[in-house]
Amino acid sequence: MITVGIIGATGYTGMELVRILLKHPEAVLAYASSRKWSGQAISDVMPHLHNARDLVLAGFDAQEAVSAAELFFVCLPHGESMNISADLYGRGKKVIDLSADFRFRDPVVFRKWYGEHTQPELLSEAVYGLPELYREEIGGATLIANPGCYPVSVILALIPLLEEGLVSLDSIIADSKSGVSGAGREPKPNLHFPEVYSDFSAYSIAGTHRHIGEMEQELGRISKVDVKLTFTPHLLPVSRGILTCIYADPSDYLDEGSLVELFRERYSAEPFVTVRDLDGSLPGLKEVCGTNQCILAPRYDERTGKVVVISVLDNLVKGAAGLAVQNMNLMFGFTEDMGLNDLPLYP
Amino acid sequence: MITVGIIGATGYTGMELVRILLKHPEAVLAYASSRKWSGQAISDVMPHLHNARDLVLAGFDAQEAVSAAELFFVCLPHGESMNISADLYGRGKKVIDLSADFRFRDPVVFRKWYGEHTQPELLSEAVYGLPELYREEIGGATLIANPGCYPVSVILALIPLLEEGLVSLDSIIADSKSGVSGAGREPKPNLHFPEVYSDFSAYSIAGTHRHIGEMEQELGRISKVDVKLTFTPHLLPVSRGILTCIYADPSDYLDEGSLVELFRERYSAEPFVTVRDLDGSLPGLKEVCGTNQCILAPRYDERTGKVVVISVLDNLVKGAAGLAVQNMNLMFGFTEDMGLNDLPLYP
Amino acid sequence: MITVGIIGATGYTGMELVRILLKHPEAVLAYASSRKWSGQAISDVMPHLHNARDLVLAGFDAQEAVSAAELFFVCLPHGESMNISADLYGRGKKVIDLSADFRFRDPVVFRKWYGEHTQPELLSEAVYGLPELYREEIGGATLIANPGCYPVSVILALIPLLEEGLVSLDSIIADSKSGVSGAGREPKPNLHFPEVYSDFSAYSIAGTHRHIGEMEQELGRISKVDVKLTFTPHLLPVSRGILTCIYADPSDYLDEGSLVELFRERYSAEPFVTVRDLDGSLPGLKEVCGTNQCILAPRYDERTGKVVVISVLDNLVKGAAGLAVQNMNLMFGFTEDMGLNDLPLYP
Amino acid sequence: MITVGIIGATGYTGMELVRILLKHPEAVLAYASSRKWSGQAISDVMPHLHNARDLVLAGFDAQEAVSAAELFFVCLPHGESMNISADLYGRGKKVIDLSADFRFRDPVVFRKWYGEHTQPELLSEAVYGLPELYREEIGGATLIANPGCYPVSVILALIPLLEEGLVSLDSIIADSKSGVSGAGREPKPNLHFPEVYSDFSAYSIAGTHRHIGEMEQELGRISKVDVKLTFTPHLLPVSRGILTCIYADPSDYLDEGSLVELFRERYSAEPFVTVRDLDGSLPGLKEVCGTNQCILAPRYDERTGKVVVISVLDNLVKGAAGLAVQNMNLMFGFTEDMGLNDLPLYP
Repeated sequence: MITVGIIGATGYTGMELVRILLKHPEAVLAYASSRKWSGQAISDVMPHLHNARDLVLAGFDAQEAVSAAELFFVCLPHGESMNISADLYGRGKKVIDLSADFRFRDPVVFRKWYGEHTQPELLSEAVYGLPELYREEIGGATLIANPGCYPVSVILALIPLLEEGLVSLDSIIADSKSGVSGAGREPKPNLHFPEVYSDFSAYSIAGTHRHIGEMEQELGRISKVDVKLTFTPHLLPVSRGILTCIYADPSDYLDEGSLVELFRERYSAEPFVTVRDLDGSLPGLKEVCGTNQCILAPRYDERTGKVVVISVLDNLVKGAAGLAVQNMNLMFGFTEDMGLNDLPLYP
Repeated sequence: MITVGIIGATGYTGMELVRILLKHPEAVLAYASSRKWSGQAISDVMPHLHNARDLVLAGFDAQEAVSAAELFFVCLPHGESMNISADLYGRGKKVIDLSADFRFRDPVVFRKWYGEHTQPELLSEAVYGLPELYREEIGGATLIANPGCYPVSVILALIPLLEEGLVSLDSIIADSKSGVSGAGREPKPNLHFPEVYSDFSAYSIAGTHRHIGEMEQELGRISKVDVKLTFTPHLLPVSRGILTCIYADPSDYLDEGSLVELFRERYSAEPFVTVRDLDGSLPGLKEVCGTNQCILAPRYDERTGKVVVISVLDNLVKGAAGLAVQNMNLMFGFTEDMGLNDLPLYP
Repeated sequence: MITVGIIGATGYTGMELVRILLKHPEAVLAYASSRKWSGQAISDVMPHLHNARDLVLAGFDAQEAVSAAELFFVCLPHGESMNISADLYGRGKKVIDLSADFRFRDPVVFRKWYGEHTQPELLSEAVYGLPELYREEIGGATLIANPGCYPVSVILALIPLLEEGLVSLDSIIADSKSGVSGAGREPKPNLHFPEVYSDFSAYSIAGTHRHIGEMEQELGRISKVDVKLTFTPHLLPVSRGILTCIYADPSDYLDEGSLVELFRERYSAEPFVTVRDLDGSLPGLKEVCGTNQCILAPRYDERTGKVVVISVLDNLVKGAAGLAVQNMNLMFGFTEDMGLNDLPLYP
Repeated sequence: MITVGIIGATGYTGMELVRILLKHPEAVLAYASSRKWSGQAISDVMPHLHNARDLVLAGFDAQEAVSAAELFFVCLPHGESMNISADLYGRGKKVIDLSADFRFRDPVVFRKWYGEHTQPELLSEAVYGLPELYREEIGGATLIANPGCYPVSVILALIPLLEEGLVSLDSIIADSKSGVSGAGREPKPNLHFPEVYSDFSAYSIAGTHRHIGEMEQELGRISKVDVKLTFTPHLLPVSRGILTCIYADPSDYLDEGSLVELFRERYSAEPFVTVRDLDGSLPGLKEVCGTNQCILAPRYDERTGKVVVISVLDNLVKGAAGLAVQNMNLMFGFTEDMGLNDLPLYP
């Protein structure tokens, strides 16, 4: 049994961590902080977590935190997260940072998308927490940069193609559609219920979304050369889930059966990536919501010679809190899927 | 005043035609048929059309129909529509066929996507009912093939690019997302409310959707050479609206300002195509639902050198019934926007 | 032609007034104010109103306002609205106040539910703007208190029963369900999209909702004795519409056919109240959304001896902006339904 | 470990049973039948249950069934269910019937609401599967009639009031709102996605819904005298969940604090009924969806002297499959909440 803490437990990612950790057989949620609701029981702030009555939210205090837990999930806004994560790390704790703050290797690239970094020396310490790429490093890591939700959706769909050099690197497009919880719990005019309901729109298109930097870094590391990605995010009128459709030009002749086979082989040992066969139905969000699964359906359009890959996951689970717990399991030598085997609700 | 009839008035497209025609100042809805509800008043079958109490649905009878009206909107399933449209046309009536049956010039191409055509000689008579391309021909036509909803969404977003030869013709991708009414009124397991709610998925991807043939025909006519289109349709958990995101590689250096300007000029005289400026917000479905507008936002991703165009419209209005009435207005010399100036509901 | 102004044009009620007035044949929207967006064109703030490009939102200035228009719709929060309405009224203008500020005859009752009134002397001047009760007074009024959305839904369902003394006055229950736009345009944590989506809950139950005072006042005026109402509002996960289910004990033996007949007679001359027959389907929100209609289905449960009345309307139209325009039509002698004959979108 | 079977595994209730049983530590799902999909793996028919790859759906065969399992969940339409349940019961198996077929003690009452009963002699054998009323009998039962979803929602909200004789028995009203999955998986015109989305309506009102008979039977057994219930069901545009608002007149003076205290005491030992305090928020559907919890908020309207109780549960879990597994746990002496401790997803 290990003791864990959540810094920023009352945002959507923090709440989802609470939900998952409350039933994890090897982790005890020993500390949870919230600026807004400190002093209240978790089950008062989040009545759906009715069995969390005993845990009282704290105002963050580093001293108190480090004496309570050995691993921390830091779920604060970028810019703020880096300082608290650095502090906890400096006090000898293991840290999984769910913000963007430690996802970049290069502080110059970080600055371009997010602004100045106050802990640039830690960037080389952090391991990018995507087990499908860095399982071994995660196992030995002390500071994990948990990936962004769009990046997980996009990168998992591209790993087999880039590792095998199958597609032209300047042809890649990711057309993503995300549920509203991906935008966080803070109410905003454009996320007010009557505005989003029945609506659908794109935003931050044509090279302006911050996740591009993170995705290009990782795609570039796989490919060993720079990759430029065209990325179009959309806001879906649902609470959870990301569906990405990837387009890319094959470098050479491709056969759809071999394409699927390539994906199957690459992910055959992965507990949380499923490849849908050619005779299987295309995956929808409800097959993954509430679970840590990412389902991929690689296809080939013979008429136009384009590779098309559909990727679905739950932005709050495989795209955030579930992935963080998967990383925790690896860091502590637990079975990788421990506490992460929920099935989705249907319908 | 003209008299009009609707064959198949109780599907979603037929119902939308009734709604629009009931307030058209120059058209009287004199005949409406329905296999399923013949003998009932329209307002009994569609209680929301409470002011249509007088009109009783007929079982289709060609003799009775032609004596009642001078123009017919035929809203039947493809394969079935062609025979009734041909019959009405043969009896000297003007016909706007809203099925796919007369959208193809070449019966061989029709067969490839839909099966055998029983009236191939009429294919050359029919005018493709997209005023933004064929306004003049529509004005003189007797048989109109009303375009499909996806094709309108995609073609309007591509006209300026293809007419000017600005993009590479083998690079075009259309990633479309449609509300469920686009799939018709017939209940189906996969369109049952609990299945679609909270879900989102792609379908008929990688070159298998029937609208591809129609889109490639029209894009090819604009470009004067064959065009191959990569098309990915998705099912949005809303009732109405299509948003398409177009991707294409420019043939030459492009400047975003000039791109928008090109679109503005091309559509400056169009009553139902609006181009969103660079400082305008990206359009969402609720800005067009219930209206005959198509809003386009052409953008350029400088980082990757891709043209990105967002296109939104209401699949039942500009993508079907509203466009059909626009065609009717042109055929009879009415003001083109007559009866089509509804504003959208918001929120 | 008259000139009208809207004070507070960018809340949901104000925006709906803009939408309706833009196509009213006898009213010109000559003035519209918004604290937040003054200086911007209406069509920039509300891109769906694309044909309102010429009208620029003003910061409210009484002098400027009164020189621009002869009638004002005041759509401000209660407490604030009373002062501006009083000012405009004092300057000789006709005013339709859409807040709660002038709905009460008795300042003591107002204080109980809303707080101190700064213009108590005007309460007796104001006419409660429900044409189905006060058509004649509205015709001659200078200051209209436009009813609340729940009160319209509840009162219209009870008028025939109370006028005829058919039900026991201490037995009346109204179980209402409202779309989220009824809570206004201001983003709030509990109205954030991911919170409301897929959810449903009651709020302000057991005698605590402010609309109770307004409803009891009007029900009491009809009955000539005090009426106490049990009222339970719920938040529906949709944008628009209120459905109320009324329960009441009949004072005497009742026959369902006569009950429906009573409702039909009472409302036979009303342009915006429809009574659904026993063989008609029960009305749903989509039959009224976007329209000024209220549909009533009075029924009698023989097994238990309860009267049950279903009432549906669009909270922003018949429950706010549409009703206000209906009142305007009466004040200026226009046809009562002028500009108010939109049909609902379906599906 | 016990072996269990599901007859009718591919309706919504059957699918939910599969989901719950797949992770039950003491039950092995050894048999599952489906008329429509026999011969296919469960995970092919329900891809969200990706870990059920081994279980192949059978066409129902009684011989084969009884040799495979010791307990059967029968999830067939009423009328059909009774014969198969009787058959399995006759062959010495334990049966939990999830249809309405064994919920009535009196075949005459059954006939009134559902038609002729072919196994009337079994009605007295069956135990009504509501542990909050019949825990002991369920423990010793061989044939369980699993309650309807609305009845669970309504009865749990009334037990404390009726057991203590606190309310007038002819005053009780239940105004219920249910998600669409309660209507089953069969596609129907009125449950087609575009019809229900954004809509809300009542149905089967004024004493016509079949669940009334079942509710009155149980309420009468608690009260020892006949109870007549006014029941109004509504269709909510969400997939899951029932919220009921109960109204009743107290027989005597009531105090809100004591009312809540009464509920708390009555349910203090119940694992799946939670009573919300006066200072707690009113419960919403998302607090219970996916869980076996029913949350009750009893309140008292002092102004009108009405008791108001809000009740929420998930119609497919506490209203069907979860309750059935709770009954199974009792029948086999497992911990009552075994396999039933999922937390809800939020948001």
